[in-house]
Amino acid sequence: MRRLNIYSLLVLFCAVLPSLHAEEGYKLWLRYDQVGDAQKLKAYSQIIKSYFVEGNSPTHGVISHELNVALQGLLGKTLPASQSVQAGSLLVTLASSPLLSPLNVGEKLKSAGDEGFVIFTSTLQGKKVIIISANKTPGLLYGTFHFLKLIQTQQDISNVSITSAPKLKIRILNHWDNLDRTVERGFAGFSLWDWHKLPDYLDPRYIDYARANASVGINGTVLTNVNANALILREDYLKKVAAMADLFRPYGIKVYLTARFSAPIEAGGLKTADPLDTEVQQWWKNKAAEIYKLIPDFGGFLVKANSEGQPGPQNYGRSHAEGANMLADAVKPFGGIVMWRAFVYDNNVPEDRAKQAYSEFKPLDGTFRDNVMVQVKNGPIDFQPREPFHPLFGAMPKTPLMMEFQITQEYLGFATHLVFLPSLFKEVLDTDTYAKDKNCTVAKIVDGSIDNHALTGMAGVANIGNDRNWTGHHFGQANWYGFARLAWDHSLTPEQIADEWVRMTFSNNADVVAPLKNMLLTSHEAVVNYMTPLGLHHIMGYNHHYGPGPWINKGRPDWTSVYYHKADSAGIGFNRTSTGSKALDQYADPVKKQMESITTCPEKYLLWFHHLPWTYKTKSGRILWDEICYSYNEGVDAVRVMQKNWNSVEGKVDAERFKMVKDFLAIQEKEAVWWRDACLSYFQSYSKLPIPSGLDKPPYSLEYYQKLSFPYAPGIRPQW
Amino acid sequence: MRRLNIYSLLVLFCAVLPSLHAEEGYKLWLRYDQVGDAQKLKAYSQIIKSYFVEGNSPTHGVISHELNVALQGLLGKTLPASQSVQAGSLLVTLASSPLLSPLNVGEKLKSAGDEGFVIFTSTLQGKKVIIISANKTPGLLYGTFHFLKLIQTQQDISNVSITSAPKLKIRILNHWDNLDRTVERGFAGFSLWDWHKLPDYLDPRYIDYARANASVGINGTVLTNVNANALILREDYLKKVAAMADLFRPYGIKVYLTARFSAPIEAGGLKTADPLDTEVQQWWKNKAAEIYKLIPDFGGFLVKANSEGQPGPQNYGRSHAEGANMLADAVKPFGGIVMWRAFVYDNNVPEDRAKQAYSEFKPLDGTFRDNVMVQVKNGPIDFQPREPFHPLFGAMPKTPLMMEFQITQEYLGFATHLVFLPSLFKEVLDTDTYAKDKNCTVAKIVDGSIDNHALTGMAGVANIGNDRNWTGHHFGQANWYGFARLAWDHSLTPEQIADEWVRMTFSNNADVVAPLKNMLLTSHEAVVNYMTPLGLHHIMGYNHHYGPGPWINKGRPDWTSVYYHKADSAGIGFNRTSTGSKALDQYADPVKKQMESITTCPEKYLLWFHHLPWTYKTKSGRILWDEICYSYNEGVDAVRVMQKNWNSVEGKVDAERFKMVKDFLAIQEKEAVWWRDACLSYFQSYSKLPIPSGLDKPPYSLEYYQKLSFPYAPGIRPQW
Repeated sequence: MRRLNIYSLLVLFCAVLPSLHAEEGYKLWLRYDQVGDAQKLKAYSQIIKSYFVEGNSPTHGVISHELNVALQGLLGKTLPASQSVQAGSLLVTLASSPLLSPLNVGEKLKSAGDEGFVIFTSTLQGKKVIIISANKTPGLLYGTFHFLKLIQTQQDISNVSITSAPKLKIRILNHWDNLDRTVERGFAGFSLWDWHKLPDYLDPRYIDYARANASVGINGTVLTNVNANALILREDYLKKVAAMADLFRPYGIKVYLTARFSAPIEAGGLKTADPLDTEVQQWWKNKAAEIYKLIPDFGGFLVKANSEGQPGPQNYGRSHAEGANMLADAVKPFGGIVMWRAFVYDNNVPEDRAKQAYSEFKPLDGTFRDNVMVQVKNGPIDFQPREPFHPLFGAMPKTPLMMEFQITQEYLGFATHLVFLPSLFKEVLDTDTYAKDKNCTVAKIVDGSIDNHALTGMAGVANIGNDRNWTGHHFGQANWYGFARLAWDHSLTPEQIADEWVRMTFSNNADVVAPLKNMLLTSHEAVVNYMTPLGLHHIMGYNHHYGPGPWINKGRPDWTSVYYHKADSAGIGFNRTSTGSKALDQYADPVKKQMESITTCPEKYLLWFHHLPWTYKTKSGRILWDEICYSYNEGVDAVRVMQKNWNSVEGKVDAERFKMVKDFLAIQEKEAVWWRDACLSYFQSYSKLPIPSGLDKPPYSLEYYQKLSFPYAPGIRPQW
Repeated sequence: MRRLNIYSLLVLFCAVLPSLHAEEGYKLWLRYDQVGDAQKLKAYSQIIKSYFVEGNSPTHGVISHELNVALQGLLGKTLPASQSVQAGSLLVTLASSPLLSPLNVGEKLKSAGDEGFVIFTSTLQGKKVIIISANKTPGLLYGTFHFLKLIQTQQDISNVSITSAPKLKIRILNHWDNLDRTVERGFAGFSLWDWHKLPDYLDPRYIDYARANASVGINGTVLTNVNANALILREDYLKKVAAMADLFRPYGIKVYLTARFSAPIEAGGLKTADPLDTEVQQWWKNKAAEIYKLIPDFGGFLVKANSEGQPGPQNYGRSHAEGANMLADAVKPFGGIVMWRAFVYDNNVPEDRAKQAYSEFKPLDGTFRDNVMVQVKNGPIDFQPREPFHPLFGAMPKTPLMMEFQITQEYLGFATHLVFLPSLFKEVLDTDTYAKDKNCTVAKIVDGSIDNHALTGMAGVANIGNDRNWTGHHFGQANWYGFARLAWDHSLTPEQIADEWVRMTFSNNADVVAPLKNMLLTSHEAVVNYMTPLGLHHIMGYNHHYGPGPWINKGRPDWTSVYYHKADSAGIGFNRTSTGSKALDQYADPVKKQMESITTCPEKYLLWFHHLPWTYKTKSGRILWDEICYSYNEGVDAVRVMQKNWNSVEGKVDAERFKMVKDFLAIQEKEAVWWRDACLSYFQSYSKLPIPSGLDKPPYSLEYYQKLSFPYAPGIRPQW
């Protein structure tokens, strides 16, 4: 009989129930463990002796509570909440407070807007204090969390002077959560939203969700899947939504919903959803009024229309702009907005799917209402491990374009692969579109500075579920965190984000910080290499997108893999140059020129834009086939280095998270090998070239890999 | 703008993240809080000074770990784990230990079997000790948990002498969990089993599941839904199952699977699943051999065949016995068993569904292999709030009949209604079948004592999900606990079970114990009254079974409500007497006689067996219609009394569980009123009689109740 050995049992025991101190990662980056460095702890305790939160809105209550809990944890003692300025006060108050009148705080906050803040050391009533101030209450909330971060990451606070304001107005999570609590492309369990028990029962976890988001400046959440259900607009469901909006409001978070374009038919009993039909327009206006009566600060609608079977204005011969504008008119009187997705998918299979969004939306520039944003995915296909930036960025100067990133790892290994997405996000944001001239980066298009838009935003498709640690992988938390940080300030580097996240989430110990940052910062290149190196894309398993599937060739052509890699005996890659699909015509000239030429096209985009012979000589001097083989192996090797880095922190982080991450890294390593072997087996059937000597050969036949099936991979429609 | 007031926020804050001591109910009845009574604490500390677990199997490791954690918690100090007998030792060792040779422990354990235990105070080597002993290792595990319970419930342990052995051999949970982690009729979130990550990642929660079950003597678990999927028999899934079996083994828990009868076709590629086909027989034999190679102590199969569309032997013109025996032959060489469900549902709608199982199975008595058990639901319909006992109990003396109870509250208010099911279970177990003579209770049929069966068992359809508190409702834990306790010893009373559960789970404080026991012990009658009083049954919402639906009249007749209540202008109730469906013919004569006569038929079964005029005079002196009205109101009133009882413990139990239970009770009260008003509105449309004065009138029209729709009620097949 097989038995667990005692050692494994003991290891498991460490993580289980009786010792309730087991570390499950629930606290995210808000751990507030006592400062480990004794000198710093002493210094902090000398500088902060009490806190004084002036004001009594619900948000002020949130701030007081957070300071109480956080300072107690960080400093290891209860600090008094005072009602007056004292030596060593941490004073949190609006710039308009008479207390601050000697200090000219308004000047410091001139360009901080409604959400920015200042934190500075000062002398008030002859006493040395630290002041957190802002023009409006949300700024106080963000300033408070920023200040706590200084201590969490063990910064010097003896003389602080910080001003910060978000570069984008709308910083929002998109939850692809269904009303039955399944989550489309969700890999961290099921939806947090327990619709059945709402509004009568409010899970305390909703509050922790709000706290976590507030701590990183997220100010909106779309509760429902873009593949939308009209039921959410029914009165009883709106009351459930209102209960959540009430909970989230003190945390500066507005609630949004997805609007199913055909809702006037399904929920309203009308015969049409034609946006030019006056009855339809009135139905939406009435619905908006009903919503705003329940939720006065309702954010607005996110819409996926005429894409992947979703209804939309084109069903009635109307344009996306006509559809979006109708909804925009309905919410406009209440201050609402419409986020209209550019991710469109015609029923007619296009010659090159990468071109479709641009072709449909570019001509509509200038025709949208001023409370409409067009939400554009980072790349022209669909959240692949690496894509060039979407050609719409820079192509619609009269329309505010919202960035849509995917935090959930639909195409990047689900919840068990450690991939630090800020690297991916930042690569896109920093790319120059050359829309007007050089130095028109994607980030500057999105933040409105190039085209002078006030309405700006960034959306992240959430990776959050009801798994105890929220994101499945403990390191998945870094992607939630990192997305939010970039939405606040896209000038941050992945290195900075990794540094603060590691310190807050794991440890300030240099022996932990260094290896964990190394893991994070090498992980994106790793996954690109072991999945889709050199510009390859969309070669994953069918439907669930789990594991490799370069052989997929059935179903709708632009849902297959062969459509994208175009491997044949001559070579591999998608020719999007002027001799191919001409997708490069959608980019500004300097971009087009760079990508068009195989000598200037960065090799990371090589097979995205070019079809090349297997024997094409790459920059390394190797032929393309060999370079592909080496790249896949580099990906696998990088995962193994990540494992070594992780193993080096054993005993320096808690045993429970150490074990779980170690187990997940073993899965990642196994699956990286699987990706490599399956893809090389498949491509070799065309290249007919040997795996270079010194590299591992696939241990199984191509047929073996092709036969693997995973009907219950998570994130897809459940079935009994 | 609506705002949460500060008070609500503060209440919520108590339950949330930063103060990690928030009580979420995760620890179940294994809290091990320090003994609150100072005198008792002192007494315990004087009696137990160290523990000595002799032996080193994995189960011994489990015992040591549990004692370490539990005694530390209960006594507030770490007790040494010694390797010798000392004054004040708690000695845990097998009866065969040379240490015990002076004590003739074997005599005490004569009828304790492999799982029973003794706990007794004794003198060994001149030292006063407490000894936990057993014939086999599982008994030590159960004895240990029993001993800990003595302290948890603050019993006197100065002179212990306890012998206990389970009355049933197989005490098992049935998980209706699907491979996509949805749970059929699951109301506590989703499945604990994360199949996608198995076997590479083992959630530490699996261990806590095993601990909890071991603590109450559960020794088996069926991991998969009775509406079975052949995929679970595929090699990769069997490896996942094996990993769980390895984890569960030290806790005395065997793993079982559901077998889809058509698996030889779906998983084996055969053209038939005919149980008399030799290829089919061989396929199952090979599959069994494959399973037992991975899991040497695999328990066996649970089968739902030819019921609600599931395939079965009747598809090939074979009997249930022929089907069961083929599977039994496959697992027999390895010691496995087959649990064959008697819950059959023909495609042909019968005159009275209550008769069907008996009609099909009674003739098969004596034709099953000796490793087959027939698993019979407690009542002849389907887990209704109250049913008379199933007529098969007592009718198949040559076949071991296993009891199937439903712990999940499919028909009893889902996870938000507080209903203590041991009351329901016990009512059935204590009922006399008169199978041979009087005093042939259902319990005695099930425990094998009447018909001399060694293979005995009880199955509970689990109410466990990935909700943090396991069961959705904190009080749902009492049903998991109570089911297990009755499976161990059906002579326990609901009062005893409630008492120990409340003490372990909430408090030994008399001001808490009394009101909570009152809530528990009145709750079953309450739900019967506000849902289905006086023998009414099966009048719930269609498909999801949520809320009242006495008007349901479409679809398959025996899935409607009108089929069961048969209300018309003349009266109400299902005539199952000799003038009706003759279902009473399936019971022994004394039972039949009692039920046949409306003067002796207990009123709780009145409308189950009789169709009576609205003006029929009941024992209270009221006419039937009035009695129905009063019964529904009694149900509502009882919930309100439960609320009062709960409110009385505010401040005496933790704030988090107090708030959640309070919210759930408010839902229960609201839904009890809904049930009452909807049912009375509907039945009144036939009775044409007024609601008695002094009772609340339904505030809405019948149409209002009929129009309510809940497409995403939990526990049904999810849909996007």
